[in-house]
Amino acid sequence: MIRESEASAEKVIDRCRKLARFSEDPGCTTRTFLSPPMRDCHKEIAGWLAAAGAEVTVDAAGNLRGLYPAAVPGARRLLIGSHLDTVPNAGAYDGILGVVLGVALLEELRGRRLSFAIEVVGFSEEEGVRYGTPFIGSRALVGRLDDELLMRKDKDGISVRQAVEEFGLEPAEIPDALLNNDAIGFLEFHIEQGPILEDLGLPLGVVETIVGQSRLEITFVGRGNHAGTTPMHLRHDAIAAAAEWITAVEKEARRIPGLVATVGQFEAKPGATNVIAGEARLSLDVRHGSDDIRTRAVDTLVRLAQQISKRRGLTVQCNVLLNQKAVSMDPFLVSKIKEAIEHSGCEPRVMVSGAGHDAMILAEKIPSAMIFLRTPGGTSHAPEETVEIADVAKALETGVHLLDLLAS
Amino acid sequence: MIRESEASAEKVIDRCRKLARFSEDPGCTTRTFLSPPMRDCHKEIAGWLAAAGAEVTVDAAGNLRGLYPAAVPGARRLLIGSHLDTVPNAGAYDGILGVVLGVALLEELRGRRLSFAIEVVGFSEEEGVRYGTPFIGSRALVGRLDDELLMRKDKDGISVRQAVEEFGLEPAEIPDALLNNDAIGFLEFHIEQGPILEDLGLPLGVVETIVGQSRLEITFVGRGNHAGTTPMHLRHDAIAAAAEWITAVEKEARRIPGLVATVGQFEAKPGATNVIAGEARLSLDVRHGSDDIRTRAVDTLVRLAQQISKRRGLTVQCNVLLNQKAVSMDPFLVSKIKEAIEHSGCEPRVMVSGAGHDAMILAEKIPSAMIFLRTPGGTSHAPEETVEIADVAKALETGVHLLDLLAS
Repeated sequence: MIRESEASAEKVIDRCRKLARFSEDPGCTTRTFLSPPMRDCHKEIAGWLAAAGAEVTVDAAGNLRGLYPAAVPGARRLLIGSHLDTVPNAGAYDGILGVVLGVALLEELRGRRLSFAIEVVGFSEEEGVRYGTPFIGSRALVGRLDDELLMRKDKDGISVRQAVEEFGLEPAEIPDALLNNDAIGFLEFHIEQGPILEDLGLPLGVVETIVGQSRLEITFVGRGNHAGTTPMHLRHDAIAAAAEWITAVEKEARRIPGLVATVGQFEAKPGATNVIAGEARLSLDVRHGSDDIRTRAVDTLVRLAQQISKRRGLTVQCNVLLNQKAVSMDPFLVSKIKEAIEHSGCEPRVMVSGAGHDAMILAEKIPSAMIFLRTPGGTSHAPEETVEIADVAKALETGVHLLDLLAS
Repeated sequence: MIRESEASAEKVIDRCRKLARFSEDPGCTTRTFLSPPMRDCHKEIAGWLAAAGAEVTVDAAGNLRGLYPAAVPGARRLLIGSHLDTVPNAGAYDGILGVVLGVALLEELRGRRLSFAIEVVGFSEEEGVRYGTPFIGSRALVGRLDDELLMRKDKDGISVRQAVEEFGLEPAEIPDALLNNDAIGFLEFHIEQGPILEDLGLPLGVVETIVGQSRLEITFVGRGNHAGTTPMHLRHDAIAAAAEWITAVEKEARRIPGLVATVGQFEAKPGATNVIAGEARLSLDVRHGSDDIRTRAVDTLVRLAQQISKRRGLTVQCNVLLNQKAVSMDPFLVSKIKEAIEHSGCEPRVMVSGAGHDAMILAEKIPSAMIFLRTPGGTSHAPEETVEIADVAKALETGVHLLDLLAS
């Protein structure tokens, strides 16, 4: 069994690498929403799906869909998949691996029919590269690919609607992409894109929650002044105030289990060697599986910024740019995935996803869950992105067993 | 006496304001090295100097020089002055006040001759705006306006030498600008450009030392990573490391009396909200009257950066860009200035200048000293720059008494 599944895993990896060659840029992998290489990508995967016994279509939102029939007609269906678009200069596995694993699971069935149909889905868009808005593909399945989004334009002035038409699809048929009542759930395999599983030495994890996220812009305003003639005790230094606050942000995030808080932008004015900064503008990104813990942490961090500013004779402005709720995965599916991971001989790490995924969108309508694969170095969104063959084999074994568990 | 000196002070201020109108930019005061408005500035001051009994010349470095003779021929001379150039969008007093006060002191003598001659000097360049190198004027007096500097070009490709020629001066005569053995000292009145005298409620200060200065570029290199998927304990965040260090820099500077340490530049890469910063590049500016204290402080701050980086799994690079020694003012002149300030009814605050001045250059060759005037709000290099009439009156009284002290 092990040797056999390693051979299948190797095939999965080869296929991901092959798909990585369908790119808008010959030097690297870049494949955005309904770009020409997406057509080649569809063609390749459609061949594999058809050979595995699935009926293949492309819906009007550009999602590739392969339906593998159930043992009896009129049965409900389980969706398995992820996205086929990439960031610029991408790796070979982010998104794609979840689709290719879906195909491989159909192949593992070798024509055996289950009590439910399986629909493998390759979403057309998740990264938000071409239109600045992510999840165009999965939105169509839950009825959120609306007119406003269809009118949005890319940098060349081409709207989503035009892109759909130019790909040979019919925007009027987008409502046909909607999930109907026969969908029993959605399963997404995805690389973790983080270091947790590697740090724990585990190949697989099951996602319990996709984090909620706050984004803020924090501006400290002090007084610009001469770096030589202004003694330390008479300064109102915006960089120094911001630095004290960043240290406090890090301390607070470390204190609260599961919380991540990041200052990723730091711009100082006037930004001269010999001038005390009068202004420092920072970004704050806070995430947690619990919305309550996250919003309380944000309140604390804003209060700390105010306290530090007041003590130093500065002012601070805190603007909330995003306040996105956490999304829970389906408890029943999570428990079955845990069982299947254990069955494959691994410890089933229950974890929180720190990034958004298609499963977050599908979860609005149907029970959804995710299986994370260990990501070496936590590296993603880069050509160095990789996965271990043994981990892919474990994911396949887990998938096969999960299908059996759900079918019984 | 008070009323009379206040009238003279008002005249000094009016003259500074009048000179501020000679500008390259009609909307504000900008007057760089040998620019056309410098000619008008010279003409105006030359008129005042001649009326006060001085013989006026412009040396080949563009310095305006007015020699007020001594009681006997062949006597030595005391130089009094400051610079006539300005930063862009300048105030009316930085530099100019020291020249106009020199003129006013000649006027206060009302033709009375002393045992030494007085040469009022308006240096052509101190700010370093046009050529990126400061002190072009005062360098000529100490023999440091060399060929390399003469060949330097401004943004329009005009060299210092060409600028001298275009102003109608003869570069070959630059050596004639050199101080000769008859110079007994240099006295520079200047606005403090800092908040110390205002904070102490004192109109005047006497500069004992012009600080030495270190400039460094500090680069923390960590690892860029996903802000959502990387837990706090697995981060190597360059912004967080830099913030911890900045807080330590401030603490160390506050601990050491007289030390100022400033991080004025902060650039983070990649600088995105949702990405942990992989790199943070900062400037460090450290100043103190004692070179020993300054260099030891820089060593400590570099060591702290290394310790913080090591503990966090980052690397840090510290490049020294400038290591300029402190310059002592002449102790005899300082003691006489203290006496003169006390005689005018003020407490003579002995202080360190946190910025460079022409006196720093002259001190290489002759005994030099500076008198600082309180600067409201510490504001300089801005149109809001101002001085109090009463403080200018005190400076004049002090100057007159100092001349008497030195003459006796």
